[in-house]
Amino acid sequence: MHVTVRGRPQPFRTVAFDAGNNSVRLIEQRLLPHEFKIIGTRNFRETARAITDMVVRGAGAIGATAAYGLAQGALAFRGNDLKKFSAHVETVYQVLKNARPTAVDPVNAMNDIRRHMTPGQTVAERQFLALAAAEEFAGQDVRHCEEIGRHGAKLIRDGMKILTHCNAGWLAFVDIGTATAPMYAAQAQGKKFHVFCDETRPRSQGATLTAWELAQQNISHQIIADNAAGHLMQRGEIDLVIVGSDRTLGRTGEVANKIGTYTKAILAARHKIPFYVAIPLSTIDWNLQRGFDIPIEERDESEVLGAWGVTGKQMEDGRWKMGKRAYIRVANPTSGARNPGFDVTPAELITGIITPAGIFHPQELWQQRRRLGFTD
Amino acid sequence: MHVTVRGRPQPFRTVAFDAGNNSVRLIEQRLLPHEFKIIGTRNFRETARAITDMVVRGAGAIGATAAYGLAQGALAFRGNDLKKFSAHVETVYQVLKNARPTAVDPVNAMNDIRRHMTPGQTVAERQFLALAAAEEFAGQDVRHCEEIGRHGAKLIRDGMKILTHCNAGWLAFVDIGTATAPMYAAQAQGKKFHVFCDETRPRSQGATLTAWELAQQNISHQIIADNAAGHLMQRGEIDLVIVGSDRTLGRTGEVANKIGTYTKAILAARHKIPFYVAIPLSTIDWNLQRGFDIPIEERDESEVLGAWGVTGKQMEDGRWKMGKRAYIRVANPTSGARNPGFDVTPAELITGIITPAGIFHPQELWQQRRRLGFTD
Repeated sequence: MHVTVRGRPQPFRTVAFDAGNNSVRLIEQRLLPHEFKIIGTRNFRETARAITDMVVRGAGAIGATAAYGLAQGALAFRGNDLKKFSAHVETVYQVLKNARPTAVDPVNAMNDIRRHMTPGQTVAERQFLALAAAEEFAGQDVRHCEEIGRHGAKLIRDGMKILTHCNAGWLAFVDIGTATAPMYAAQAQGKKFHVFCDETRPRSQGATLTAWELAQQNISHQIIADNAAGHLMQRGEIDLVIVGSDRTLGRTGEVANKIGTYTKAILAARHKIPFYVAIPLSTIDWNLQRGFDIPIEERDESEVLGAWGVTGKQMEDGRWKMGKRAYIRVANPTSGARNPGFDVTPAELITGIITPAGIFHPQELWQQRRRLGFTD
Repeated sequence: MHVTVRGRPQPFRTVAFDAGNNSVRLIEQRLLPHEFKIIGTRNFRETARAITDMVVRGAGAIGATAAYGLAQGALAFRGNDLKKFSAHVETVYQVLKNARPTAVDPVNAMNDIRRHMTPGQTVAERQFLALAAAEEFAGQDVRHCEEIGRHGAKLIRDGMKILTHCNAGWLAFVDIGTATAPMYAAQAQGKKFHVFCDETRPRSQGATLTAWELAQQNISHQIIADNAAGHLMQRGEIDLVIVGSDRTLGRTGEVANKIGTYTKAILAARHKIPFYVAIPLSTIDWNLQRGFDIPIEERDESEVLGAWGVTGKQMEDGRWKMGKRAYIRVANPTSGARNPGFDVTPAELITGIITPAGIFHPQELWQQRRRLGFTD
């Protein structure tokens, strides 16, 4: 997608490889939306640290970062000894795997790169194959998001008002995103529409990342408190809901996503508003039998008890004059919080799942499993 | 209720009159939950300013503040000239009425005080009657909340988990509150229960005021993001919902309350969880024919785009070491927001309305109108 730098829109990917410097280039997402900065990691250990420290986040983006990181590590090897090279690659693999131990995308991505390296007869050949496979992996992430956009854009009609929750945008992938992909594709087709971004407390990814993305792309949008969607639906101000997914159960069509998604699905069902989930194939879980068994992470209570932002002041033209990045305590100092990070939406509340292979009813996923990349 | 000052619980009312100093004593609510401070206004103009500046807020609390303010103004008059006294009282009335022009409680309260003053034959008699009427008005607010508590406490069983939204606690009234009244009464009966306080973005009254109140009363509670209630209900972790109301339509049983209330009512209905609204009689609107006609205030977008709190840091014992009060910008600096302040919940989603006269189904209110203070 594009980012406006010094008044000019520039094409950017969330994750890219700088072959000349053997460096993984990432958008420093912790500074967004208040500052846009690109960083380059100098070696695979720095790349792993960028994953750990959440410089880069989002399933697709950390998968591609690990893929590039493995290639980066492989390319840094000096010498011709295949055995030593393999031992080195194994170290790189473990370091990147441990960067975020619960995530599945980095492991799947790196396994894919290793499979493609195997045919290489020499160190140089394997290094070449590693980078080619990483580029192919990142390219496939982009193509899948493009396909989601192509299918999903059909749902967007001129003048629609669309609600989205959290950030399943291009910052969470290599480019384009999932929930945002239909919007970007519809915009390219010349359609006019308006997006309401749920703030998405407690981490506010809607107010920060999604709003930033849409602003960069000049898509008409407004942020709303998570409390406001019901009222807007009641008054006929929302026509369509599109969200992303952290894990979708291929057997039942249940969708795990950011806390609050379930609530939005219930609201949409009550108001007879179509509710779609856009997913990359990598997030389909073909094994789990029921959504109730998806572990729901309880996150640190400080997220609920306060907020991150920047100090500063409102200027006369309405813009925010930035001070320093700061965490403030909002809540009563002697109270604690519960902070479940995700919730599970049952299939009956979901109008359709937008995949790179087309739009399916959630309960059709199992029947369509071969087309959706299921392997026994 | 009680506030712990230097380790000792002290009884406090949100609004009280200091006759010795002819001063209205108020809790400076803008400093809560981070600082507890009592202020005394020196004259009726300062009392009006306290209403305007939201030192005191909440329907019952500003009604009683205006009532005391009128008495305070009347008591400040020197002389015996009844005509000059009446002109002075009219000035006091207008100044307090204009303190928050859209609020109905201050006007109703002051009309009540003036009615009680009329029989007085001298300035001194009218001054005496004004203060007596203001004390009676505040006392009735407390008794009504006690009655709400007495009726509502029957709904609370040992071990229950209760959800509440925003602040309809004693800080919004002279004492006890409405949505919190059943909790305080149940606690006095020795019942054990747990309260989840919705954060209630964008102004976070749940995380700040309600949590502070419950902490002072040693009621077990946790703050949750507004996004989390659906998930907790799905997992069977909420047994009962009690909220307050800014305006309840006596003819239809529709309830206008803080934005997000409607969403919680829909969630409760889906999960078959009882949803109760606790109301003082003063908020029943016997005229309006349908909830759709209730004007919904669009508030300033800065509330959604940022947050108020205090800077500082977490100490090792978990407490928050306070820095300065600050507003931070959370959202993308180039994005705007929609900020409806209230929403309207239809009668079909409400299990019962807890009033000082008993608990009624929302559609019974009209039939019970004489008991509920309706006058032709």
